[in-house]
Amino acid sequence: MTPPSKKPTWVVDKERTRRAEARETVWLFGLHAVRDALLNPVREKLRLVVTRNAADKLEEAIAASGLEPEIADPRKFDVPIDDGSVHQGAALEVRALNWGKLADVCISGAGAPLIVLLDRVTDPHNVGAVLRSAEVFGARAVIAPRHHSAPETGALAKTASGALERQPYLRVPNLGDAMQELRDMGYVLIGLDGDGTVTLDEALATAGSRAVGLVLGAEGPGLRDRTRETCSVIARIPFAGAFGSLNVSNAAAVALYAAATR
Amino acid sequence: MTPPSKKPTWVVDKERTRRAEARETVWLFGLHAVRDALLNPVREKLRLVVTRNAADKLEEAIAASGLEPEIADPRKFDVPIDDGSVHQGAALEVRALNWGKLADVCISGAGAPLIVLLDRVTDPHNVGAVLRSAEVFGARAVIAPRHHSAPETGALAKTASGALERQPYLRVPNLGDAMQELRDMGYVLIGLDGDGTVTLDEALATAGSRAVGLVLGAEGPGLRDRTRETCSVIARIPFAGAFGSLNVSNAAAVALYAAATR
Repeated sequence: MTPPSKKPTWVVDKERTRRAEARETVWLFGLHAVRDALLNPVREKLRLVVTRNAADKLEEAIAASGLEPEIADPRKFDVPIDDGSVHQGAALEVRALNWGKLADVCISGAGAPLIVLLDRVTDPHNVGAVLRSAEVFGARAVIAPRHHSAPETGALAKTASGALERQPYLRVPNLGDAMQELRDMGYVLIGLDGDGTVTLDEALATAGSRAVGLVLGAEGPGLRDRTRETCSVIARIPFAGAFGSLNVSNAAAVALYAAATR
Repeated sequence: MTPPSKKPTWVVDKERTRRAEARETVWLFGLHAVRDALLNPVREKLRLVVTRNAADKLEEAIAASGLEPEIADPRKFDVPIDDGSVHQGAALEVRALNWGKLADVCISGAGAPLIVLLDRVTDPHNVGAVLRSAEVFGARAVIAPRHHSAPETGALAKTASGALERQPYLRVPNLGDAMQELRDMGYVLIGLDGDGTVTLDEALATAGSRAVGLVLGAEGPGLRDRTRETCSVIARIPFAGAFGSLNVSNAAAVALYAAATR
């Protein structure tokens, strides 16, 4: 018989989830992503599998990491990476990065007072490209809900082209709550949607020198109701075409550029 | 014995290439790409393979196309589409679109006097995303060299999300020659590169109301020497980050936005 637990069920569940998340590992792959992770001192690295050729190319990064590489035959590169992906003979098992608390990153974090919020963007290539643009334009963080968002996978890391190691990517339990917290900190949250009543430039002019959060939804569903209601304003990216809409990572790049050069 | 040909070898070769290109077909897939192609009257359509479910969803587009669909079992969807792609039960064999001559599209084409030139961008997802942004911002054409560029494939069409049917994508024999032709037409060609001496905004201000061509290279190699030399000016997208660079489709979206809203 199992002895009765003294903790309430929800506490036990929460602890179990936290332990499971801590155990969870990710395989990063590709020369660029693996090199950047090897050179990141705060990245917890577990196993490095490389071909002889890739080991030569990564020589300095491997030495810096102190990791003992496992040399693999290129014809038998048996590592669980995404289907149809190109590993370039290098794969590294790691744990997800811990960027800390929303308030710490968004109040005192490095960079201009600019962040990106993604409402249920599940495609890892889109999220990877957004991380990359966020880094280029000096955003403090990319924030997404813990569930229904692209997790830190090898495909995401590869598209992010190194930005995953350097650009804070915070996954929060509830996006609406995080948005409210950010508004309380003084962030102006600009939701992007084709039906916005003002243009992006007008919304940025109104925000002036205040901290700005750019909020983007997934293609198709767009912003959810609560997300939309929690924005300070809904703005549109002006366009001339009668058809079409921007891919989410392209919309994020345009909005980051407009906000960074305002 | 083969009778001797009266035509010179190079004429025979050219004719053979042209015939081969005319015979070449592409399988488009995914509900969005297939629907848009079915509804495009100038698209030459050969075979439509759909599941019963997809046929229901595409009912109007199929009726409009006049094509007789071949109904396929979802478990045996035997169509040559790209590995790891999601066909959503719909695949359409088509021929590439013929957008006509560079001069016709770039002098008298629809839309603002704005075009995009891609120097050896081979990733179909990047080119698809550029076509989509080009359409949104009303560019006349996306121009790329015939060789070493992403061909019109199903993956490109899917990323372009319908834009492949509407946004002229011209593949020219020689990019440098096409650039010279465009400059002779009056286009200001702005090459984008991190080492540009002026910012994108400064270059656009100098161009004023003249026709603008935005020239982007592939990630890594960047602009080739002749491409760079044939540009009117090399400009950089300003950024704050010490690391990183934009994905080519994100750089194109930012530049198109800046040019369209100038």
